[in-house]
Amino acid sequence: MMEQLRLQLPDWIEASRIYAEKGQVAHYIPELAKAPGDALGIVAMGPDGETATAGDADLPFTMQSISKVFTLLLAFMDNGEEGVFAKVGMEPTGDDFNSMLKLELVEPGKPFNPLINAGAIAVTSLIHGATPEARTGRIMQFLREAAGGADLAYNEAVYRSESASAHRNRSLAYFLKDNEVLDAATDVEEVLDVYFKHCAVEITCAQLARMALLLACGGTDPLTGVQLVPRRYVQIAKTFMITCGMYNASGEFAIRAGIPAKSGVSGGILALVPGKLGIGIIGPALGEKGNSTGGVHLLETMSETFDWSIF
Amino acid sequence: MMEQLRLQLPDWIEASRIYAEKGQVAHYIPELAKAPGDALGIVAMGPDGETATAGDADLPFTMQSISKVFTLLLAFMDNGEEGVFAKVGMEPTGDDFNSMLKLELVEPGKPFNPLINAGAIAVTSLIHGATPEARTGRIMQFLREAAGGADLAYNEAVYRSESASAHRNRSLAYFLKDNEVLDAATDVEEVLDVYFKHCAVEITCAQLARMALLLACGGTDPLTGVQLVPRRYVQIAKTFMITCGMYNASGEFAIRAGIPAKSGVSGGILALVPGKLGIGIIGPALGEKGNSTGGVHLLETMSETFDWSIF
Amino acid sequence: MMEQLRLQLPDWIEASRIYAEKGQVAHYIPELAKAPGDALGIVAMGPDGETATAGDADLPFTMQSISKVFTLLLAFMDNGEEGVFAKVGMEPTGDDFNSMLKLELVEPGKPFNPLINAGAIAVTSLIHGATPEARTGRIMQFLREAAGGADLAYNEAVYRSESASAHRNRSLAYFLKDNEVLDAATDVEEVLDVYFKHCAVEITCAQLARMALLLACGGTDPLTGVQLVPRRYVQIAKTFMITCGMYNASGEFAIRAGIPAKSGVSGGILALVPGKLGIGIIGPALGEKGNSTGGVHLLETMSETFDWSIF
Amino acid sequence: MMEQLRLQLPDWIEASRIYAEKGQVAHYIPELAKAPGDALGIVAMGPDGETATAGDADLPFTMQSISKVFTLLLAFMDNGEEGVFAKVGMEPTGDDFNSMLKLELVEPGKPFNPLINAGAIAVTSLIHGATPEARTGRIMQFLREAAGGADLAYNEAVYRSESASAHRNRSLAYFLKDNEVLDAATDVEEVLDVYFKHCAVEITCAQLARMALLLACGGTDPLTGVQLVPRRYVQIAKTFMITCGMYNASGEFAIRAGIPAKSGVSGGILALVPGKLGIGIIGPALGEKGNSTGGVHLLETMSETFDWSIF
Repeated sequence: MMEQLRLQLPDWIEASRIYAEKGQVAHYIPELAKAPGDALGIVAMGPDGETATAGDADLPFTMQSISKVFTLLLAFMDNGEEGVFAKVGMEPTGDDFNSMLKLELVEPGKPFNPLINAGAIAVTSLIHGATPEARTGRIMQFLREAAGGADLAYNEAVYRSESASAHRNRSLAYFLKDNEVLDAATDVEEVLDVYFKHCAVEITCAQLARMALLLACGGTDPLTGVQLVPRRYVQIAKTFMITCGMYNASGEFAIRAGIPAKSGVSGGILALVPGKLGIGIIGPALGEKGNSTGGVHLLETMSETFDWSIF
Repeated sequence: MMEQLRLQLPDWIEASRIYAEKGQVAHYIPELAKAPGDALGIVAMGPDGETATAGDADLPFTMQSISKVFTLLLAFMDNGEEGVFAKVGMEPTGDDFNSMLKLELVEPGKPFNPLINAGAIAVTSLIHGATPEARTGRIMQFLREAAGGADLAYNEAVYRSESASAHRNRSLAYFLKDNEVLDAATDVEEVLDVYFKHCAVEITCAQLARMALLLACGGTDPLTGVQLVPRRYVQIAKTFMITCGMYNASGEFAIRAGIPAKSGVSGGILALVPGKLGIGIIGPALGEKGNSTGGVHLLETMSETFDWSIF
Repeated sequence: MMEQLRLQLPDWIEASRIYAEKGQVAHYIPELAKAPGDALGIVAMGPDGETATAGDADLPFTMQSISKVFTLLLAFMDNGEEGVFAKVGMEPTGDDFNSMLKLELVEPGKPFNPLINAGAIAVTSLIHGATPEARTGRIMQFLREAAGGADLAYNEAVYRSESASAHRNRSLAYFLKDNEVLDAATDVEEVLDVYFKHCAVEITCAQLARMALLLACGGTDPLTGVQLVPRRYVQIAKTFMITCGMYNASGEFAIRAGIPAKSGVSGGILALVPGKLGIGIIGPALGEKGNSTGGVHLLETMSETFDWSIF
Repeated sequence: MMEQLRLQLPDWIEASRIYAEKGQVAHYIPELAKAPGDALGIVAMGPDGETATAGDADLPFTMQSISKVFTLLLAFMDNGEEGVFAKVGMEPTGDDFNSMLKLELVEPGKPFNPLINAGAIAVTSLIHGATPEARTGRIMQFLREAAGGADLAYNEAVYRSESASAHRNRSLAYFLKDNEVLDAATDVEEVLDVYFKHCAVEITCAQLARMALLLACGGTDPLTGVQLVPRRYVQIAKTFMITCGMYNASGEFAIRAGIPAKSGVSGGILALVPGKLGIGIIGPALGEKGNSTGGVHLLETMSETFDWSIF
């Protein structure tokens, strides 16, 4: 498969760029708006570490919502299933990723799942650590390990841009505080600071592919043999990636591509073929539901060609 | 009428206390929870300054949402109708006073009216003044004048309690910031500080009656002859008091009592009979929509007896 | 005032036609779409029967939602306040007139008020009569009396057009059946048949002005001295006309015009100045909330000039 | 596995009955309310036709929402993917199965997916056939084939009970008609008649297991070798069963059990282990989201024991 990928990916990238042109680079975080809208790149990595690379794979980008998968895993390791599910639910919402509707309408006002913004903020509040810096440190350490020891850091400019402009996330966080999803001892600004930082972690397609491979292999890094995450937690994360990973276009992606994936508003997508492949994609132009238009088309093409759907 | 009021109010107070027992003192602001649930008091004041007093009229309480009427008037004087209605609409919502549904669901996310929390926060941001302290100072000064020169101050404990616990209001304010109803230059915490302080202004029924009388007389204090507020602005405020003054029970109150009124979660109600009477009521026990149960029953009894409905 | 009205109305009509051009004739009932979009006419009638007429006052039109005020009055006379308010609430919704949101979201799923479609259908089900024909007959008789003995009938083509196309109203009615607002014995299609017929009653501005005058005079026809409706029921109806009469633009109309009014999607408006004037208007072009754009502008101009606001 | 199932199922049934006691038999369709609340039965069938049976597996029940999976398959075969997805979306809603919120709130008012009631009604309207009887006939024929030639029929009493009481479904259908999801030529009552009949098809656990097996084997009946449904359509159906099959508890079931399943308000559940097993369950007592409490617990136990999750 890797051979065929190397051969075909350049063509598929070009065919998918047309879709990139239909999208728009996220503008609500000023720093993100600087990304090139027509870029599209991919790295796919097999369990033996072999890779196929195509397009603008060298373009660095920030993880944004993709980081939510990893803070969820760390929160499971810190709190167990019960501890996490006391704060967030397991259901897709059908609403926008930053919607507040169900927080107000559905008792008891718990975020429906850990991959919408409200849920990810709640999950971030569960990461252990004595100080916000300690929590950010633990998350960074976990991300680095998940990326096979890559030297990851958060992008200071994006972090500042996001922190300065993320009024909707502040609104969500204070709503959670009011609903006691964020508990009395939790300082909203501190949680948000940790949240903005892990969203701003800068990464490349190759690093993302390595992280995806870890999930594809059930939490054990196939290149080192080290089990970084218990298999059950990875299983839950993959389930959420199918039901909620592509915002409120997850259902469509499940039907068209059928593989676990998580997108971010930077245009990044982490995707995986269980047991076989970790994939990292960057394509900054987004569709109206917040997913990389070029990236989604590329994954659908690949999945159809190789019959990857898990269903 | 004043004579008859003096005669009958004690009986009506007792009859209405039964309704107080069905209500509950607001608990979401810790300081408010300390108020006596069975208290009920009233002062009614005529244009000649004569008053009828009954029940627990001496119990001081904080204005809470009642202050929204006066910040609205001051905002009109500072910005004109157009300036205010650029930031808030004119429609009742049918939703709870702290609801965020319509901010998310109805473009362009402007608060529907100035008497729900979101709208009152937006109005507060329109009060002129170089600093938050200056704005609070101008509001305090206006409230004192509206109360006939009373020596009003905000209750420090209630202010602090509200500021520390009002996560939902913070959530609303950041949502407004995200929707650009609060503009880029506006600091959310500063606006909230001004807002919490004017909500915490301590008052008595007699002072509230005097303020109501000012509105009943179209903005001109009948005891001094001084026009404090242009008549048109008072007219708008009275219209809002009918359509939105009693939260999402305003429609029912319009049908049952039919007079302009504004309630607060402290259990206070400011009400008026146009040209004839200003009324201040305190009854801390609230119904499920946030209005004083005893106070509402008392006003309905009075309105029915004297045929006060403006309809 | 009548003299001045006769003098100024032609100019005001012309000035308001500009607003008609900004509106659009209702198209969701095919028959209504045939009305001339630039038409605008008015008749105002005083308690002595004197009238001022201007513009396209002879254009006949169907009552549509305006009829809801009169079925409400008849339902009160048939069932008393308690009987009616067991089935409909007293609150404005802030939503579109045909919205189903609050039926689903707010327990127990009772229509919020009798002037939205759901509420008016529920009210129609309360009209007494052994058969749908008998109920329609009683409504027609009441409308004729309210119009001073006018020979009113429903427009067969509009009725059929409405009955054939009103799927949203059927949807509302079955929702009400499910919520038991329409009781087990009520046949949905029969209720809708009565409803569509009273909406399709054809009328002129002069007849509408006479009906409005009846309400302006508290239920007693000033030209015959006959009390057709108890004053209290008229008072409730006028209250609803202020809080809910102009759909979800009622709040704005209360602030800008401040008089009880009820609009219909035919472009008709019934309005009144308490004790002084009944007004009938036709202007088929509607704004986005369903009110005659020309008619609303005309009423605002008149109210401002004559200081009619009841607030 | 079949051996172990035969051994352990009786114990698991008993352990799961405790959960049945926490549920309630559906009461909104009067006929369904007659089912025994404490019943729980299962049949599991392998590709070789071998079965494991336990509990009240002989209790016949109606398919209810389970039939939606098969009308979806038939609609795909009649209209292709594009034809079906022109009328229904691909996303879970997060709302109740009979909710109308998103039909009103999310343009263009298309049902979010084919497994909520609104979507299933739309899908039913796509089944080919000259008359309602012909369409029902084709559905019955397809269900019989899917059940390996079983002699299925709809339960007349349940059909009549459902037809007489299903006001909410009528409301949904007329809303769809208004939104033009049901097209102009479609008669709402005719569509509903077909819908109520396929929901009322009576079945046993063994027949359901056989139908599930067909899906587990990608549309080819493993016992006859006949391909009844193209594999791609079965793949889509299985995807929907994961994202939307258990109403708004689908996300939780995906995490806890992780296998495609579809429940009905009769308490039936069709579930499958890809390539390995078709499962039919009956347990009439439902949880608050409409799924058999005992059946869900039983499936979770089995999936955990045998590590069936597809994730």
